[in-house]
Amino acid sequence: MEDIEIETVGEATLRDPVLVEGLPGVGHVGKLAVEHLVEEFDSEELTRVYADEFPPQVTVDDDGVTELAHASFHAVSTDGPDLLILTGDHQAQSHAGHYHLTDTFLDIAEDMGAESVYALGGVPTGELVEEPDVLGAVATNGGIDPLSDAGVEFREGEPAGGIVGVSGLLLGLGGRRGLSAACLMGETSGYLVDPTSAQAVLEVLETVVGFEVGYESLEERAEEMKEVVEKIQQMQGQQQGMPTDDDLRYIG
Amino acid sequence: MEDIEIETVGEATLRDPVLVEGLPGVGHVGKLAVEHLVEEFDSEELTRVYADEFPPQVTVDDDGVTELAHASFHAVSTDGPDLLILTGDHQAQSHAGHYHLTDTFLDIAEDMGAESVYALGGVPTGELVEEPDVLGAVATNGGIDPLSDAGVEFREGEPAGGIVGVSGLLLGLGGRRGLSAACLMGETSGYLVDPTSAQAVLEVLETVVGFEVGYESLEERAEEMKEVVEKIQQMQGQQQGMPTDDDLRYIG
Amino acid sequence: MEDIEIETVGEATLRDPVLVEGLPGVGHVGKLAVEHLVEEFDSEELTRVYADEFPPQVTVDDDGVTELAHASFHAVSTDGPDLLILTGDHQAQSHAGHYHLTDTFLDIAEDMGAESVYALGGVPTGELVEEPDVLGAVATNGGIDPLSDAGVEFREGEPAGGIVGVSGLLLGLGGRRGLSAACLMGETSGYLVDPTSAQAVLEVLETVVGFEVGYESLEERAEEMKEVVEKIQQMQGQQQGMPTDDDLRYIG
Amino acid sequence: MEDIEIETVGEATLRDPVLVEGLPGVGHVGKLAVEHLVEEFDSEELTRVYADEFPPQVTVDDDGVTELAHASFHAVSTDGPDLLILTGDHQAQSHAGHYHLTDTFLDIAEDMGAESVYALGGVPTGELVEEPDVLGAVATNGGIDPLSDAGVEFREGEPAGGIVGVSGLLLGLGGRRGLSAACLMGETSGYLVDPTSAQAVLEVLETVVGFEVGYESLEERAEEMKEVVEKIQQMQGQQQGMPTDDDLRYIG
Repeated sequence: MEDIEIETVGEATLRDPVLVEGLPGVGHVGKLAVEHLVEEFDSEELTRVYADEFPPQVTVDDDGVTELAHASFHAVSTDGPDLLILTGDHQAQSHAGHYHLTDTFLDIAEDMGAESVYALGGVPTGELVEEPDVLGAVATNGGIDPLSDAGVEFREGEPAGGIVGVSGLLLGLGGRRGLSAACLMGETSGYLVDPTSAQAVLEVLETVVGFEVGYESLEERAEEMKEVVEKIQQMQGQQQGMPTDDDLRYIG
Repeated sequence: MEDIEIETVGEATLRDPVLVEGLPGVGHVGKLAVEHLVEEFDSEELTRVYADEFPPQVTVDDDGVTELAHASFHAVSTDGPDLLILTGDHQAQSHAGHYHLTDTFLDIAEDMGAESVYALGGVPTGELVEEPDVLGAVATNGGIDPLSDAGVEFREGEPAGGIVGVSGLLLGLGGRRGLSAACLMGETSGYLVDPTSAQAVLEVLETVVGFEVGYESLEERAEEMKEVVEKIQQMQGQQQGMPTDDDLRYIG
Repeated sequence: MEDIEIETVGEATLRDPVLVEGLPGVGHVGKLAVEHLVEEFDSEELTRVYADEFPPQVTVDDDGVTELAHASFHAVSTDGPDLLILTGDHQAQSHAGHYHLTDTFLDIAEDMGAESVYALGGVPTGELVEEPDVLGAVATNGGIDPLSDAGVEFREGEPAGGIVGVSGLLLGLGGRRGLSAACLMGETSGYLVDPTSAQAVLEVLETVVGFEVGYESLEERAEEMKEVVEKIQQMQGQQQGMPTDDDLRYIG
Repeated sequence: MEDIEIETVGEATLRDPVLVEGLPGVGHVGKLAVEHLVEEFDSEELTRVYADEFPPQVTVDDDGVTELAHASFHAVSTDGPDLLILTGDHQAQSHAGHYHLTDTFLDIAEDMGAESVYALGGVPTGELVEEPDVLGAVATNGGIDPLSDAGVEFREGEPAGGIVGVSGLLLGLGGRRGLSAACLMGETSGYLVDPTSAQAVLEVLETVVGFEVGYESLEERAEEMKEVVEKIQQMQGQQQGMPTDDDLRYIG
């Protein structure tokens, strides 16, 4: 096996697709958002990326069949522009691995004609957020106005630690390639898988990219999470404050 | 020294051997199982694999003679098909090291004519298991039926974290090479070296591969472990629950 | 992206510049010091160094625009010799990364004509220091006298752990190249961002390099830090000792 | 800088030298032992080995002059065979780094004509040892008898964890090259720098290599350590047991 291997698993003709990335991260906001798009629209898995920087691990599906750790590109046809969705379950082990994987992701996306990139994720607030704002950051000055018009907040000094991982590098390396790249980050507690924040991010994406999607399934999932939170809060009636990471580990 | 070095230490003619891997892991189930096969049948160490991703370490045998960290392939003649046993004391340090070592292991096994792979291991349950089930996972849909017939359980969502390390990659990388690969995981507490679980795994392997082996020595070892567990439980009479990792570190 | 990429972002003619490095470290002394020089004098960013050993991260500026992790060289014109300032927000992830980055930094500096190097930093004392001394170390015997004359202390066995990171390697690798290299380390508690210590280091640099700079802004920042310290000490009135790392994380 | 760089710093004619290694480790036994030889006999530093796997660090000597992290070979003339001493302050960062450095050390030693190797170190016992035994391990069966005759103990199952780091690999990789290689490990508490254990190891080396050395300075140092231990034991009068790592960090 090479350091990185690209496997073609499907075919689709994409017209000027927009790359939309959602890998695991804070509140699984990005991953929930892109998985929602893959499920709601006609979609086709095109390409898998295997890497020796991913965990040495297979997942086991419900039939007992294993799959080697990988990231996937999906072609998604909306009522507006075509989307090229990047998702997966893993990030790289080392700093260098992050750089080389993101470079590969950008190579693939550019080969498929993508010229703009949206990295989706969450930004932790430390407390439950009922109506999450969406924070933004862009790779060049060019793209801020349409995002602001769509309700994205640009706040001085936020996110405080910058943007890390593949999302950050899609802007950092994508910007250096001349791509138009933006990061949309939904506010989220940081303690829970957060479908509400994922919806907020998608509503912005709808506006700026130009498509429409339904949210019934995400809203159902958000209801379920609300019930979980209420149960935890009751259980912790006599205790103080937020559920801890340990309480919530089984969720999601 | 190269990154990985292969040393031939013995010779044997193997007819369509089945690769059976048992490296250190949960409950040492896989390693106990394959060591039992090497001891019970006529066997010959064929090949050693040294790697700069193994710990920089020598072991010292009972005569004071050292051996550099390595993994070994053994030819094992049963009353049924020939086995090619892979065992050792170490896993790689980095993610990339795991991938490259497993690729080397598969190269060696394929050179010796192996077309099917069984990765043996344990799956932790968190409590003592008197009659361990054996869970399964396969690299392709093909091989589930004979395993189910032999009593292997395929349970949705288990093992929860997927399969990691060399065992996982033998399925992940082996499957991508077109090999028939399965993982057999004996239930085990996760706290103790577990000969009973190793026997359960071997009983499945007997059926699916087609050989017969005695279990006297494993059963004796299981008896010894039972006595150890009873002593620990007495010692902890006034305390609650399972022995801790620290209590049990000296065992095995 | 290559392991290390050098990007030219500005131009300036430098006459026999002196390389002055200030990367993040104890008390942010070195970084505060060189940033002060960049702000007080006419300066121009010349070169950026990107590296896959830097964190996979972008920072977000006040306009919401991201920048990929990098180190920068700035040309700084003083009333004395020209300075070539090296600063940034990151160090490498691995040992090898530190060596290769520092080698690249030295290549760039030598290409621009630098023959002497000052690495600026802090040395932790574990307690608040009102009037910090500046400790020194040099790459060869040659340069101690002028530093001693400028008030730099050379104390047996200090700093106890040697000098680590890019600062250490600028002396270690720079010295092996035949460059004149010295490290100036301001005493600092190790708990707080320390503008007072940065000023002490700069006052030595003024003398040995031969330029003059004002300190109004650093002194203001030192005043602010004093007030922060006083507030923390009041808050901890009934508790003992120094503020903890956690108390102070938000500072700086 | 290359991954590993070899610098010639002195010259000496060595006749069939014996390689003796003492790098930092348990009780600093190996390092104390080889430094004693370098100090007691005529010796000359021949070669330095720099490596990007060593810490990115310079040490500062008593004159304020820095030295880049390295390992050194010294030629040592005894009243018996010539010794080639390998010492230093560092081990490699990664597993692979350990392998490649040790390979380089063996290349250098073989170039200088060494055919036998003694790796010196300590083996932790967890309690103070007044008269430490010396445990042994060898790379091949050949060399046990002369060591046993010199009082070296070969005990089943010891050292329990094998031998790690450069010492272990000198046997593991040296043995694979056909060199005669042995490890001599002085018993030591594991809590303290232990000149008494270093002397015990050297007394064995004297016998098996065939030279004589005085121990006055090591004995003085052992006396000092005894006083330190007594003071700590008094300080801990009302407490139980051995000094902790923290108590002893300032020693040595």
